[in-house]
Formats: sequence, C-alpha cells, structure tokens
Amino acid sequence: MSILSSLLAHNKQFVEERQYEEYLTDKFPDKKVVVLTCMDTRLVELLPKALGFKNGDAKFIKNAGGILTQPFGSAMRSILVAVYKLGAREVLVVGHHGCGMTNLDARGIVDKFAEHGINPLAVEVLENAGIRMEKFLRGFGSEQEGVMHSVRMIRRHPLFPPAIPVHGLIIDPETGALDVIAEDFREE
Amino acid sequence: MSILSSLLAHNKQFVEERQYEEYLTDKFPDKKVVVLTCMDTRLVELLPKALGFKNGDAKFIKNAGGILTQPFGSAMRSILVAVYKLGAREVLVVGHHGCGMTNLDARGIVDKFAEHGINPLAVEVLENAGIRMEKFLRGFGSEQEGVMHSVRMIRRHPLFPPAIPVHGLIIDPETGALDVIAEDFREE
Repeated sequence: MSILSSLLAHNKQFVEERQYEEYLTDKFPDKKVVVLTCMDTRLVELLPKALGFKNGDAKFIKNAGGILTQPFGSAMRSILVAVYKLGAREVLVVGHHGCGMTNLDARGIVDKFAEHGINPLAVEVLENAGIRMEKFLRGFGSEQEGVMHSVRMIRRHPLFPPAIPVHGLIIDPETGALDVIAEDFREE
Repeated sequence: MSILSSLLAHNKQFVEERQYEEYLTDKFPDKKVVVLTCMDTRLVELLPKALGFKNGDAKFIKNAGGILTQPFGSAMRSILVAVYKLGAREVLVVGHHGCGMTNLDARGIVDKFAEHGINPLAVEVLENAGIRMEKFLRGFGSEQEGVMHSVRMIRRHPLFPPAIPVHGLIIDPETGALDVIAEDFREE
C-alpha cells in the first residue's frame, strides 16, 4: 500500500485550508546562508528551529552525512549556485552526533543486495568497471572528521569565493544543541 | 558581521527552554519514505508541511534542482543508504515550479567569478583538465524534465531495489499544491 494517496489527500486539505499562508516567502535566502547537512529524519524540523531559521531564511543542501565527496558533484554545485545566483554569503556545514555515516559498513549493505532483488552480476560488473563498493559506500571515521572534510573541500575549492566564511558545527539530534568546531575556517 | 553569533545565541535559548521536546524522534523514517528535492528556501518548512510529514517521518535529500547528476554521487548514495540501512520503502522526487535550475545560465555564473576573487587561471586549468563549466553548471530544460531525469536514474540504477516505487511530483512553492507527474514509475 503506497503512501502516495494518503499524502495527496493531506495535501489537498493543506491547500484548501490555505495553511501555506504562514510560509510565503521568495527564493532568495533572507539570512544569506547556505547550510550543508545530513538527511537524518531527526533534523528535518529540528535543525531549522535550532538555528532560528524560518521558511525562506536559508538554502539547505542535504545528503547522507552532510558530506562532499566530489568537488564537482551536485552538492558542491549547489553551494556555488547558492553563492553566485542567490546571494548566500556564509556557509554552515552541520554534522550531528550519532550519524549513521560514521564507520558505514559497506559490506553489510552489499550483503543485503540479493534479498532486494539485485543480480550479483551487477556488483561484479561495477567492480570490474572501477566502481568499488567499499569506496562508493564509505562514510567517515567520526562526525568531526566528516564535517572538517567538507569544510576544507569547500574552502579549498577553486571556484569558491575566498571572502565567504565557512563554519563547521555539530548538532545534538535530540536537543538541537550546536557546537562550533570550525569558526570562519581559513587555510593557514 | 557573521550570522554565527546571533544564531548561537538563539540556539542556547532553544536548548535551555527545552523547545526540542516536540521534535524528539529516532533516526528511522517513520513513514518509510525518502524524498529527493530542491534546496529552495521556499520549501524548507513548506514541503514537509505540505506532505503532512513531521520531524522523524522521512529522509530529505536536497540539492540545487533536486537532481541526480551522477549515478555514483552523494545523492544516489544517500538514497541507497536510506533504503538498505534505514528501511525506506518508497521514493519521492519533488521538483517545483519556478526552479532556478531551469535553463541555468552557466556563462552568467562564470562571468561573476572574477568579482568574487576567483583567478581566471583556475577556470582555464579546470577546462583544460576536462571539467567543463557548461557541463558542471547545467540545469534542466523544465522542472518536469528534471524530475523525470532523476526518477529514471533511480529506477534504472543497478543497485536500486526493483520492488520499491519511485514517484515524481511537482510542488507549487507558494501554495504547496502537489501534482503527480509519475506514479510508481516503472520501466516499460
């Protein structure tokens, strides 16, 4: 049973009751901030509230771990678009305690492929084509390491403006408490 | 003047007043859904509300345009981690009307590099190393095309379970109204 129909029923009511009125804003981030963070379910509402951001205040880029793995991938492109097209003037990288990308078990994921209908040949073909599961499904050693990796990759990126500060933070996914681990990070 | 200090002052109060209590949940998505969508500021609070999702119901993966550009990039890895590690059993790709990634003007962005302190040599080096700005900073022809591109890439991905439905939707960034453009998309 798909969730889609119940979700669309809710949506119809949401629009009819004009519940959207309290969220009206425009596409430019009012606080001129772009946030790179984790897709974790606990952060969906908690993180904007813990930052004091309402709808329209910031761009949020999210993936597993809030990590940049490729300097010319979609996450880094998003940061550059936020800066050059949408006026973002500050970057926050926000990791969280208890992140599932800490010591992600690639082998454990690969072992589940068969029961989900993936042909073992597919993995063999990928591995032989140079796409290593251990590399593709890797996380980081600690949340701090993950955040600092992303902070450094942004700061050192050849197309990222040197005048824009990049901060690294860790959030408690229960209380929303933020710790700054890198403030206005600059290369020495 | 950095936004960081005002943000941290808000955060201290948020924690002290135990405002987090209404958001307490765990890392598993209660509605077993993973959503790939756009980083647009208008969707930060509006999209979860328009879907009827509270904190803890879904994983949200976000980037500019809600687009998968690489089958082995961070966004696709995030979808696979949500499915294999966190029990997601349905995928929603949600584009929106008026998305800035529609006919993204790569040249216009490149023209702004110099005023932001980027050495023109950097762009030349990248281009000569095979990293084409026109390709890296490309969007899509329409929101529908962007959503369907991502839906197809997920559905066809060699490591994505064939039994999991992938839906494509477009949201109105003002009213939150959702249109389904691909329901439970399967290859013919």
